[in-house]
Amino acid sequence: MATLSGIIIKREMGMSRRIIILGSTGSIGTQTLQVIDRFTAKFTIAGLSAGKNIDLLERQIRKYRPEVAAVADEERAVQLRNRTRDTRTAVIGGEKSLLELASWPGAELVVVALVGFSGFQPTLAAVKEGRTVALANKEALVVGGELITAAAKQRQVFIIPVDSEHSAIFQCLHAGREVEVKKVILTASGGPFLGKSLEQLKDVKPSDALNHPNWEMGQKVTVDSATLMNKGFEVLEARWLFGLEQEKIDVVIHPESIVHSMVEFIDGSVIAQMGLPEMLLPIQYALSYPQRWEAPLPAPDWKKGYTLNFLAPDRVSFPCLDLACRAGEKGGTLPAVLNAANEITVHKFLQGKLSFLHLPVILEKVMDRHEVKYNPSPGEIIDAHYWAIEEARIGLEGNGPL
Amino acid sequence: MATLSGIIIKREMGMSRRIIILGSTGSIGTQTLQVIDRFTAKFTIAGLSAGKNIDLLERQIRKYRPEVAAVADEERAVQLRNRTRDTRTAVIGGEKSLLELASWPGAELVVVALVGFSGFQPTLAAVKEGRTVALANKEALVVGGELITAAAKQRQVFIIPVDSEHSAIFQCLHAGREVEVKKVILTASGGPFLGKSLEQLKDVKPSDALNHPNWEMGQKVTVDSATLMNKGFEVLEARWLFGLEQEKIDVVIHPESIVHSMVEFIDGSVIAQMGLPEMLLPIQYALSYPQRWEAPLPAPDWKKGYTLNFLAPDRVSFPCLDLACRAGEKGGTLPAVLNAANEITVHKFLQGKLSFLHLPVILEKVMDRHEVKYNPSPGEIIDAHYWAIEEARIGLEGNGPL
Repeated sequence: MATLSGIIIKREMGMSRRIIILGSTGSIGTQTLQVIDRFTAKFTIAGLSAGKNIDLLERQIRKYRPEVAAVADEERAVQLRNRTRDTRTAVIGGEKSLLELASWPGAELVVVALVGFSGFQPTLAAVKEGRTVALANKEALVVGGELITAAAKQRQVFIIPVDSEHSAIFQCLHAGREVEVKKVILTASGGPFLGKSLEQLKDVKPSDALNHPNWEMGQKVTVDSATLMNKGFEVLEARWLFGLEQEKIDVVIHPESIVHSMVEFIDGSVIAQMGLPEMLLPIQYALSYPQRWEAPLPAPDWKKGYTLNFLAPDRVSFPCLDLACRAGEKGGTLPAVLNAANEITVHKFLQGKLSFLHLPVILEKVMDRHEVKYNPSPGEIIDAHYWAIEEARIGLEGNGPL
Repeated sequence: MATLSGIIIKREMGMSRRIIILGSTGSIGTQTLQVIDRFTAKFTIAGLSAGKNIDLLERQIRKYRPEVAAVADEERAVQLRNRTRDTRTAVIGGEKSLLELASWPGAELVVVALVGFSGFQPTLAAVKEGRTVALANKEALVVGGELITAAAKQRQVFIIPVDSEHSAIFQCLHAGREVEVKKVILTASGGPFLGKSLEQLKDVKPSDALNHPNWEMGQKVTVDSATLMNKGFEVLEARWLFGLEQEKIDVVIHPESIVHSMVEFIDGSVIAQMGLPEMLLPIQYALSYPQRWEAPLPAPDWKKGYTLNFLAPDRVSFPCLDLACRAGEKGGTLPAVLNAANEITVHKFLQGKLSFLHLPVILEKVMDRHEVKYNPSPGEIIDAHYWAIEEARIGLEGNGPL
């Protein structure tokens, strides 16, 4: 909560805010633009970025006329630059271009909608530059929470969560003071394999894992939902975002994904945020905060009949939850290692080259082999990331000691 | 919300507050004292009151040593005065003594834990005297919401709800601004007769109606829960308490009584307050606000498995809900008439002299025969009250035109 309380948002109400969207062609990025389309007077789009999808980025440049657009892929950056010579948008390229965009002069709000580890350095850069950050990239805090929140504290930067669970917690925290929080309860749908035993999980296929009951998301995070790794990462994200000891963060399975998360206060009162499982809601809240704006989104119609269930997560069938918690407790470079190894193993699982149950086995072995560095520098986090990728690859090829 | 926002609470944090409890021997009153027992340094009890139970009031006088104690019953006041001559507590008696207590010099917080119509005048008196009011008596606002909230606005008085539903809404409102509220959703357990058809309700007995599934409450309010009149009254209470148009207040059945109520905001986000169905929670919140204090009350343990259901109320089998809403829409003296007639009919039902289904029939007839006075004075409300009692009695005795 250190980053969320007592910090004055510099934004002047009613004035157009200069906004940068890192990852504007992805799922969160395009939905962010949809919100802005409804509130055009409130925002000036200063910069956009894409990894590879320059076709969509070109259309976005022509529609929103940003000062700058970044493309992570160098070659495609050149292509896009040629295609958009008739516009006033400067096209910059390469991995470093995201850092340049994150600290672009005069920007007020940086939406980090990048996928995976690639969000870490740009988030750190935006925070160090004193930008308000709307963070949809949980990995940034998973791998670099200590560094990012320390920088945020120093620069008095406000990090607004975009993840639906953390947006929920952020909203619920308004009903009490920091010292009155007893527990934060992250809800998890349980994913497509809820209720399955280890035996039943033996032969599940990637297509089964991608069949999420409630949320439409990218492939990587959908698999992470199926393993509960996603929820484990969210525990770490919540810890840094709200400045809580990890033991104050609990996970409960809620298959209907209507209660997005809850905060329990010391007096026994629980405040929950609910809504349909649509990312539009937390995205818009991050843009509108501290206001709320109308959204073309109905709330649950309770009178039609709703049943909401809550139960304990199955930590035996889904050991990734505990792996993430263990990484968070140890801290240092270990969460970065887990995250990197997970990126590789999920990729292999999606290719049909790794079984669902073998996935956490690889992760645990990589974690066990890692020599944790505490209070790591950004460079040490990056080193740990690439070390873990290599370790996981070796393990998966069966050539190494795993 | 007029009474709940923008008004500075005069209370100095950490200082002992002088408190008056109207109705200290009842269910809410004794639980209020239990809270104070755990936070003795925070309160000085200036006054207590009882209707008839002078045995308990005597024990309370000896324990809490208030400056004054009021007994509504004159004769018992004399008895108590004789019994407590060895104490420094002044004993005052009669109906007027409650008004004296409500405006007792130097009191800061008045807890109104009176039952039924008797709460109206003392609440108005406390508000007019500029006291912060913790209101557990919904009838005060049902019959005199217009007068009480106008006085509260004028004196910049803060009315803190003690009813669990309204306490929930009050807590949830912190997550947004007044103009961002789309709807307030009151939850109702549905009472012991949930799901029953008119046919099935034909022969229900008082003992059936008193068998509330979740809440331990007095007989009157338990029957009001069974007819849904209680929820109808709460619609009116919410309307005045939060300054909302009545059509923005919705009722949904939630049989488990874990979600105490919800607020839907314009962006599609719903904030809910949850907790075990224990009055200790909202009572303590009213005393601790704007802080939260630790309570010896666990929150729901979601991991043990919870199922929460929501469905539309059955307005055919339970017409009292609509009767109350209709009285609220018409306004003036009509809610006072409905409340008074309801007090009589519930009493007759409890005596076994009126059937469950005939109860709303009598109420509707009394309402139809009433000539509504708009913008009523306190006297006109009192007149309407006694008129309706007489009308209902005549109707019940079968001597009159009903």
